[in-house]
Amino acid sequence: MPEFRKDPVVDRWVILATDRAKRPQHDAGKNEPAGADPCPFCAGNEAMTPPAVLTYNSDDLDSNIATWSVRVVPNKYPALVNQGSWSGQSSNIYQTMSGLGVHEVIIEAPEHVVNMGTLSEKQLKQILRAYRDRIVELRNDQRWRSILIYKNHGAEAGATLEHIHSQLIALPIVPPAIQEEVDSAKNYHDANSGCVYCALIGREMGAQSRIVAQTERFIVFCPYASRFPYETWILPKQHAPCFEYGSEEDYTDLARSLRETLVRLNRRIENPPFNYFLHSNPLGEPANAYYHWHVEILPKLSQVGGFEWGSGAYINSVAPEDAARHLREATL
Amino acid sequence: MPEFRKDPVVDRWVILATDRAKRPQHDAGKNEPAGADPCPFCAGNEAMTPPAVLTYNSDDLDSNIATWSVRVVPNKYPALVNQGSWSGQSSNIYQTMSGLGVHEVIIEAPEHVVNMGTLSEKQLKQILRAYRDRIVELRNDQRWRSILIYKNHGAEAGATLEHIHSQLIALPIVPPAIQEEVDSAKNYHDANSGCVYCALIGREMGAQSRIVAQTERFIVFCPYASRFPYETWILPKQHAPCFEYGSEEDYTDLARSLRETLVRLNRRIENPPFNYFLHSNPLGEPANAYYHWHVEILPKLSQVGGFEWGSGAYINSVAPEDAARHLREATL
Repeated sequence: MPEFRKDPVVDRWVILATDRAKRPQHDAGKNEPAGADPCPFCAGNEAMTPPAVLTYNSDDLDSNIATWSVRVVPNKYPALVNQGSWSGQSSNIYQTMSGLGVHEVIIEAPEHVVNMGTLSEKQLKQILRAYRDRIVELRNDQRWRSILIYKNHGAEAGATLEHIHSQLIALPIVPPAIQEEVDSAKNYHDANSGCVYCALIGREMGAQSRIVAQTERFIVFCPYASRFPYETWILPKQHAPCFEYGSEEDYTDLARSLRETLVRLNRRIENPPFNYFLHSNPLGEPANAYYHWHVEILPKLSQVGGFEWGSGAYINSVAPEDAARHLREATL
Repeated sequence: MPEFRKDPVVDRWVILATDRAKRPQHDAGKNEPAGADPCPFCAGNEAMTPPAVLTYNSDDLDSNIATWSVRVVPNKYPALVNQGSWSGQSSNIYQTMSGLGVHEVIIEAPEHVVNMGTLSEKQLKQILRAYRDRIVELRNDQRWRSILIYKNHGAEAGATLEHIHSQLIALPIVPPAIQEEVDSAKNYHDANSGCVYCALIGREMGAQSRIVAQTERFIVFCPYASRFPYETWILPKQHAPCFEYGSEEDYTDLARSLRETLVRLNRRIENPPFNYFLHSNPLGEPANAYYHWHVEILPKLSQVGGFEWGSGAYINSVAPEDAARHLREATL
C-alpha cells in the first residue's frame, strides 16, 4: 500500500510507492522508452491492461485494427490506490497518510503512434475530451481535491512506454505547485481586482515577442521567466478557472493550438522529449475571478542539475524571445 | 550579460544566461559527459581555464604530474557575472534584475579522476577546505546573500565534463529552496524552542532504520520523505548553522562521512549519476539556534516527470528504510 509522507521541514509531499519498482524499465541512458513488444497500449492487446474506465468508439471506417480511438485504463503500477478514506498519523515531526488516490492512463491512439504531433486535430480533440470526461466523473467523489493530468514523452522526460499516452492522478490534497499558483493569483486579485494570468496575456499581446501563435480562443507563448529552453504555455484568452468547463469550440480550438505547437517543436527539434501538464482550479472550489487554467509544455533538452535542486531557481540558456521566434517561424 | 527574471505568478527566479549555450555539449542520451580530449581540468592544461582564484599545493611527493591538489577557477561559461551592483526594473507584473553573481568551478583532483568515491579522505578534506575558503573569502562582499556549492556527477545529473568538479554560485538573493528551509526552521523554533533538524536527528537516532552511518560528528541517513531512490543527507550532530565555521576536526570527519557514503553508493549502484549540494545559513544573517547546515545527495536513477513538475510533489519507488539498509550493509 503506498503512502504519503511529508517532509518535516519544508512543504514537500512524497508518495512512497514501492510497487512502482516493478514497472517495465528502460535502460538508463537509452534514448527511447521500451517499445515493449507486444505493446500493451496497442489495439488488440487490451487484455494486457486493466479493464477500461472510458472508451471512445472509433468512427474511422477505414480503420481495420481498432474499434476505439481513445481508451482510459487504471495504471497497472499505480502510485496511489482508491481504497477507503484519507487517514494517517503524525508522530511529532513526521507525518504519514494513506496512499489514497486514482492513477489512470489515457491511451491516446489505437495504433502504435510514438509522436503526438503526428495526430490529427480530430484525434487530439478526442484526447482532450477524455481528459474532460474523466475529470467530470472523478470530481463527483468528494475525496479528491485536485486532479493532475500530465504527459511524459521520451525516456529523458520519464516515459517508460513509447506508445503515446498521458496520465491522470486524482489527489486528496492540492499539491504545492497548484496551491502556490492559486494563492499567488488570489493575492494578486485582492490587490489589483483582476486575474494575474489575464494581465500576463495582455502584456504578451502588447509585447508580441514571446508569442508563438494565437487562435480565436487560445494564446501560445514562451513565458517571460521560462525555466527551460522552448518552454511553452497555452492559455485560454478568456478568463476561465476550470479546464473541464470548456465548450465544444474551446476543445476544438485547443486541439488545434496543441497540435500546431507540437508540430512547431518537432520542426525545430526532432521529436524532443517533453512533459506537459494541465493546471486547473482545485476541485470543490467555486469558479472564481482569480485562477486561470493553462497547459505548460516543458521540453527536456538539458538535465536539471545541482543548482536547480539546491536553489529552487533555474538557469536557462535560451531566451524565451528567441525560442518563440524560432517556433513562430517554423513551417506548419 | 545574464539577467534574473522573476515569474509573475509564483516565487520562481530564472537566470537567463544565453552565453551558456556555447558550453561543450554532450550528445543527448549519451551516458557519460564529454571526456573532452584534452581535458581542461587536468594538470598541465591550466591555460585552458581562466586563472585560478585558489590553488592548494600538492604535498604528494610521488606525484610527477601535479603541483596542485585542488584548484578553483572562474567558470568559463558563467551563469552570472561579477559586475556592478544588483539593479533592475519592474514593469507591472514583470521583474528583471542584472545577472550579478559569482560562478566558480572547484577542480577536485589534478589527475583525470571521474569518480569522487575513489579519492582519499585527505583529498576530500582538501576539497571541503576549498569550499570553506571560497565561502569565507566571498562572504566579505556584502552583495552576496547566499552561496550555493553543488555537484553534478554524470550526464544524467547535468555534468558536461567528467573530470570531477563542483561548482559555486554566489547570489544576490537567498534562493527559494534555502529561504523555505530557513523560514520553516524559524517557525519551528518559535513554536518549539528548538532546531527542527536537531529534532530530526534525534528521531533518526531513535528509529535507527534510516541511518546509513555515523561518525563522531556526523550522521548519514536516508530522509523520511526521500524524493528519490537512495537520497542521502549528511548533517553535523551538533547544532551548527554555517558550514564555513567548522573546525579542522569537523572537516576531517565530514571527509570520512562523505567518502564512505560515496563508496557505499558505488557498491550498491555502480558509479551512479548524482547531484549534491550544501545548504548553509544565508550570509549576513547571525548564527542562530534554528538553522542547521547539511549536505543533500540526490542520486539520479530515474527521470523526473510531468507529475513532479506539475505537482511539486514526488513519487519514489524505493523506501528510504530499504535504501538505508542496502547502503548500511555495503562493504567499505
